[in-house]
Amino acid sequence: MTATPEAVLARIDETLPEATERLLDLLRIPSVSTDPAHAGDCRAAAEWLVNDLRRLGLAAEIHPTPGHPMVVAKTPNMGDHSLPHVLFYGHYDVQPADPLDLWKRPPFDSALEDTPEGKVIRGRGASDDKGQLMTFVEACRAWISVHDELPLRITFFFEGEEESGSPSLVPFMKENADILGADLALICDTGLFGRDTPAIVTSLRGLLGEEITIRAADRDLHSGMYGGLARNPAHVLAQIIADLHDGKGRVTLPGFHDGVPELSPGQRAQWKALDFDAAAFLGEAGLAIPAGEAGRMPLEMIWSRPTAEVNGMESGYTGAGFKTVLPAEARAKISFRLVGRQDPLKIRETFRTWVRARLPADCRVEFTGHGASPASVMATDNPAFEKTRRALSREWPREAAFVGCGGSIPVAGHFREILGMDALLTGFGRDDDNIHSPNEKYDLECFHKGIRSWARIIAALASG
Amino acid sequence: MTATPEAVLARIDETLPEATERLLDLLRIPSVSTDPAHAGDCRAAAEWLVNDLRRLGLAAEIHPTPGHPMVVAKTPNMGDHSLPHVLFYGHYDVQPADPLDLWKRPPFDSALEDTPEGKVIRGRGASDDKGQLMTFVEACRAWISVHDELPLRITFFFEGEEESGSPSLVPFMKENADILGADLALICDTGLFGRDTPAIVTSLRGLLGEEITIRAADRDLHSGMYGGLARNPAHVLAQIIADLHDGKGRVTLPGFHDGVPELSPGQRAQWKALDFDAAAFLGEAGLAIPAGEAGRMPLEMIWSRPTAEVNGMESGYTGAGFKTVLPAEARAKISFRLVGRQDPLKIRETFRTWVRARLPADCRVEFTGHGASPASVMATDNPAFEKTRRALSREWPREAAFVGCGGSIPVAGHFREILGMDALLTGFGRDDDNIHSPNEKYDLECFHKGIRSWARIIAALASG
Repeated sequence: MTATPEAVLARIDETLPEATERLLDLLRIPSVSTDPAHAGDCRAAAEWLVNDLRRLGLAAEIHPTPGHPMVVAKTPNMGDHSLPHVLFYGHYDVQPADPLDLWKRPPFDSALEDTPEGKVIRGRGASDDKGQLMTFVEACRAWISVHDELPLRITFFFEGEEESGSPSLVPFMKENADILGADLALICDTGLFGRDTPAIVTSLRGLLGEEITIRAADRDLHSGMYGGLARNPAHVLAQIIADLHDGKGRVTLPGFHDGVPELSPGQRAQWKALDFDAAAFLGEAGLAIPAGEAGRMPLEMIWSRPTAEVNGMESGYTGAGFKTVLPAEARAKISFRLVGRQDPLKIRETFRTWVRARLPADCRVEFTGHGASPASVMATDNPAFEKTRRALSREWPREAAFVGCGGSIPVAGHFREILGMDALLTGFGRDDDNIHSPNEKYDLECFHKGIRSWARIIAALASG
Repeated sequence: MTATPEAVLARIDETLPEATERLLDLLRIPSVSTDPAHAGDCRAAAEWLVNDLRRLGLAAEIHPTPGHPMVVAKTPNMGDHSLPHVLFYGHYDVQPADPLDLWKRPPFDSALEDTPEGKVIRGRGASDDKGQLMTFVEACRAWISVHDELPLRITFFFEGEEESGSPSLVPFMKENADILGADLALICDTGLFGRDTPAIVTSLRGLLGEEITIRAADRDLHSGMYGGLARNPAHVLAQIIADLHDGKGRVTLPGFHDGVPELSPGQRAQWKALDFDAAAFLGEAGLAIPAGEAGRMPLEMIWSRPTAEVNGMESGYTGAGFKTVLPAEARAKISFRLVGRQDPLKIRETFRTWVRARLPADCRVEFTGHGASPASVMATDNPAFEKTRRALSREWPREAAFVGCGGSIPVAGHFREILGMDALLTGFGRDDDNIHSPNEKYDLECFHKGIRSWARIIAALASG
């Protein structure tokens, strides 16, 4: 069959309102994976996807896990081994929506909004990742409605634990390697580079999450009665956090930089050519000045340098007014972004040893480990990368770029390690989408051109 | 009239069950002053006291303030200028009860409990300060029931904002100096020194409360997308807290120690003679090692050295699971305990200037001032001190001691400055009363012997 996208692109344009309504419907399911109270909603989102994929004529199934379920679906053409076989991955779970009071509309009462910058799809998950996931599903829907069948064999694989460390992902992939294997994995969970420049990700930072609780007294104490004599765990925690970086913004953990590569001259030149506007990028968030490691380009700070960041901390009385307590405990959630060959498990042990060594008398510490995934470097010599680059460049005003990514999408590494296939990441989010923040949105233009992009990529990958 | 306490003491012993029931009733009113939701409860506690004092034949009135109301009551013998005139001060408001899940019974479902150490009155405010306040009221009740009238002129003065910085206290005292003036103020808001040693407080630390909020981005950011490039205000706050003390536990604010006296040799010798068991005191709280300034006696750390303590801090995501945000803001409540002639307002300005000077690019800070009161040193040469010391020594197994106090009771200074009268502080709390903590209690023995102590003190002060 001929895999020409033109008729499909026209169908996508005609049916955009229906596609948008479907996405809004999916967004109304509050599938917050990190909160056990939303387990039923996660299952509902998985069922929504299964039903939608079955309507496309796919064999779609829910697969239970110890956590939230997986969705796996296959096109009916799996027997035709002359067709390339791709696996498309996305996640149907979303970040928690709090702080709720900063949302201009309820986070799960999603809607299409008119804004001065154009129409946006507003709601938690609009960009990360339900909207992006649906760009691919809608491209397939349009293709099927025009050509009856797809020009590729496609396995769909959706998980519901991406925002909470994907605890079930690796075991599931290992147990189901036979149904997940393909020639190439496609992942749509990243963004454009700049407003009109599509991007293919060539490296991803890894992620290590640690939660520490430092305890001293067996209860909150009166700060007049005990203050100056009893250990204050909030001070101990503050000192530990302060000591995590030196005066130049470099992480101080011993051995932390083992396996961190310097940029090659070629890569440095390519990144410089991208002409990244750090001031504009930071300006979107109300900031102005790059605050990372001294002597590094802003793109290095987010793409190729490792970090240690406090994601949350809490101690003592935080309500209205004042309470003169000496807190009994102090807690922090700290995450490390990893690059190159940094070993997350080794860094976890180093961090715990380093914290324990800094504990003064009368303090105990408890650690809870969250996700631990190494960085990924993509196989850009796979011909699919150049085909995809050209397909994207035809759809968008500017040429597609090869870029790094500061976020962590561990599944890319797992596809390589467990299933032996390369992963190709492209996506259509914008920097101002407020992912993981209040008022998340996905530009209708991104949704529309994202669907069209996938139609072009499907055609390109089918062209042999 | 003859002011002999023996018949009164017998009456106190006989009527202890009724006195206990009255206290339990008062404790059931959740008069948490710092929380606006409890304003009605604060008023209810004030009304409870007015009604109780009227039943004793006193002229008692509620006095509204911009915050919670004051209660002022007077004995009918005010015209008899041959009698000494004392003012008794207490506070009917209580600390917040959270964390609620650590209470073994609901904090305002107060009850008399049997414990291996004896009977205790359990509930928020049992010791601080409703139970202590009622020791004096019950002593007066017993005296009146035996002798029909008191041997002193007594003004009762109860406030409802002590646990939230007493914002209305000074204006009220200034506007009502005519009805509050007396020869001596008695305050019952302190504790025993050791289990069986009554104590009269000769110095109180001052208190300065500051709340700081450091803001960077205009919203919580994705720590992968921005981490390493954007300023993290949790790190900035941690560094500020870490920098507040040097490696020897000494506060580093410039000029902070101006006006901090060293102990006189006589005072040092007296405090050493008290034979304070720091290990036992800390052991009550699950701690073991004095953690304050290097080279200082434990009693100095809590009675005569100034402190800076974090009472609470909060930033980013603190719920269940993990959320990889770069927080938009970080907040801390910090209090300073002050001694000698340290000037709270000057230290507030120094602190704010010091914090502002430490703010990196892209950060803003907002300050909210809470209470600011200097330290107090009592007029121990007033003969009432020696009379009280002897009266207390007759009631308790061990001689009464002159002690310092690490807490802050600013009203003592206000009585001196605004009303020109000395204040005498004694009280019957124990170190394990869990004031400001879950499971607050007041030993029934302390309540009982506290009432008896006041009967003896009233007799002693009336003896001329």
